[in-house]
Amino acid sequence: MRTVFFISDSTGITAETLGRSLLSQFEGVKFRHTRVPFVDSVDNALDCVERITESQMRDGVRPIVVTSIVNAEVARTVRQADALFLDLFEHFVGPLEDELGQAANHNVGRQKGLEESADYQNRIEAINFSLAHDDGMSHKELEKADVILVGVSRSGKTPTSLYMAMQFGVKVANYPLIPEDFERGKLPTELVKHRSKLFGLTIAPERLSQIREERRRGSQYASLSNCRYEVDAAQKLMRMEGIRWLESTHKSIEEIAAVVLQAVHVEDDS
Amino acid sequence: MRTVFFISDSTGITAETLGRSLLSQFEGVKFRHTRVPFVDSVDNALDCVERITESQMRDGVRPIVVTSIVNAEVARTVRQADALFLDLFEHFVGPLEDELGQAANHNVGRQKGLEESADYQNRIEAINFSLAHDDGMSHKELEKADVILVGVSRSGKTPTSLYMAMQFGVKVANYPLIPEDFERGKLPTELVKHRSKLFGLTIAPERLSQIREERRRGSQYASLSNCRYEVDAAQKLMRMEGIRWLESTHKSIEEIAAVVLQAVHVEDDS
Repeated sequence: MRTVFFISDSTGITAETLGRSLLSQFEGVKFRHTRVPFVDSVDNALDCVERITESQMRDGVRPIVVTSIVNAEVARTVRQADALFLDLFEHFVGPLEDELGQAANHNVGRQKGLEESADYQNRIEAINFSLAHDDGMSHKELEKADVILVGVSRSGKTPTSLYMAMQFGVKVANYPLIPEDFERGKLPTELVKHRSKLFGLTIAPERLSQIREERRRGSQYASLSNCRYEVDAAQKLMRMEGIRWLESTHKSIEEIAAVVLQAVHVEDDS
Repeated sequence: MRTVFFISDSTGITAETLGRSLLSQFEGVKFRHTRVPFVDSVDNALDCVERITESQMRDGVRPIVVTSIVNAEVARTVRQADALFLDLFEHFVGPLEDELGQAANHNVGRQKGLEESADYQNRIEAINFSLAHDDGMSHKELEKADVILVGVSRSGKTPTSLYMAMQFGVKVANYPLIPEDFERGKLPTELVKHRSKLFGLTIAPERLSQIREERRRGSQYASLSNCRYEVDAAQKLMRMEGIRWLESTHKSIEEIAAVVLQAVHVEDDS
């Protein structure tokens, strides 16, 4: 077991995300993850040194420490510990300073004042929009949606909508395709005029049945035969209506979101 | 104007997050951001080279390119373009290989098979939990919550709950503190036994009034005097009940989430 610290003067989320991605390149090694956010003083840094040393003694092997710390003195202090350090700032700030002909301000808190920024407002507004337009709950203001996800119940529309809103500030409505739509062989009327914003999610019937069983065990709704019927009918409908779609079964929420964004060409002028 | 590309063989979200954080260290420089996900073939890489070259000609200055590409040949191809390259893998994979005594597998797709993984299931389950327990909607299964956020209406509970569920797979319920609670001078009964999981969000009355005005313009609910009263009463109640809290006004969703996680000590054994 090898301990990995993600140490940051901010949330540590970036350090952790990149760190986990790097570590996943080493199969078979067991890692214990520890996120340490808000390390923004020498005192905090000294606490980190202590924790790193403790885990080295416990594990019998030195930890890996992924850091994203802007303040040079704080960063230097953490580095007193014995560990493999992967410093996300060190390698990149210098070349950027040369390229831009400007010194980095070395301020923590890229997020400061964020609540005033368009970016923050967009995200909150997008989350509220997606919540209000989850599962076809409201037809109102669909023209304000950047994307409208369609698909059978439990194909992953809600998590994808919320993730896109939260991460990218994109307004995503989602709309279930239900047996009535398949029988009519048509899209719900209120969606027709928004065709260019539609994107479909589909899923392997076996997986869908598994997910639905967790909700309503033994129901017709969850049965494999019904899931096969719905998925097949939804794909036929989407093909007929010219709606692009993605098979979500083997994809993470992040991947689905990135594919949808790329397909629908939401403008990102931030 | 300087164009910045975030180029990745996966979603590009990590490259973009770290890239934006680095660039925010250079105030006054205007950047145009372009995310290019799923660059996982030499052909795709050649398209990138073309786009980089075009933007150099348009801007009259070479772009900055933040890359996270595992495949060496694809990465090399992108680098044929003239740009400042910040490569998130290059600097870190070598030292990790030495430290772990093992070659990196250089496989794209740390996310592959993720839908089978506990991590993915946890996140989806946590999102569903948070949606079902938004705004005090359900008292059922509160014992399964990892965290219960409390605070006045529009203090940021919903976005924070959803973000924590999505990013960390943490089950977060949220519960509004309303004038009836202040008059009784007590926590809602159903929350009392979960005191150790409670965390409060508070907000500057001026900001709260602004947010509420967007929803219900001119209402008593949104008035500054009412917001002052509610915020003050909520803080008194939380102080009396020994609930830790955070002032959310100048914080991003990510920061609030990281503070709450740290305070409530949710175990992360992934």
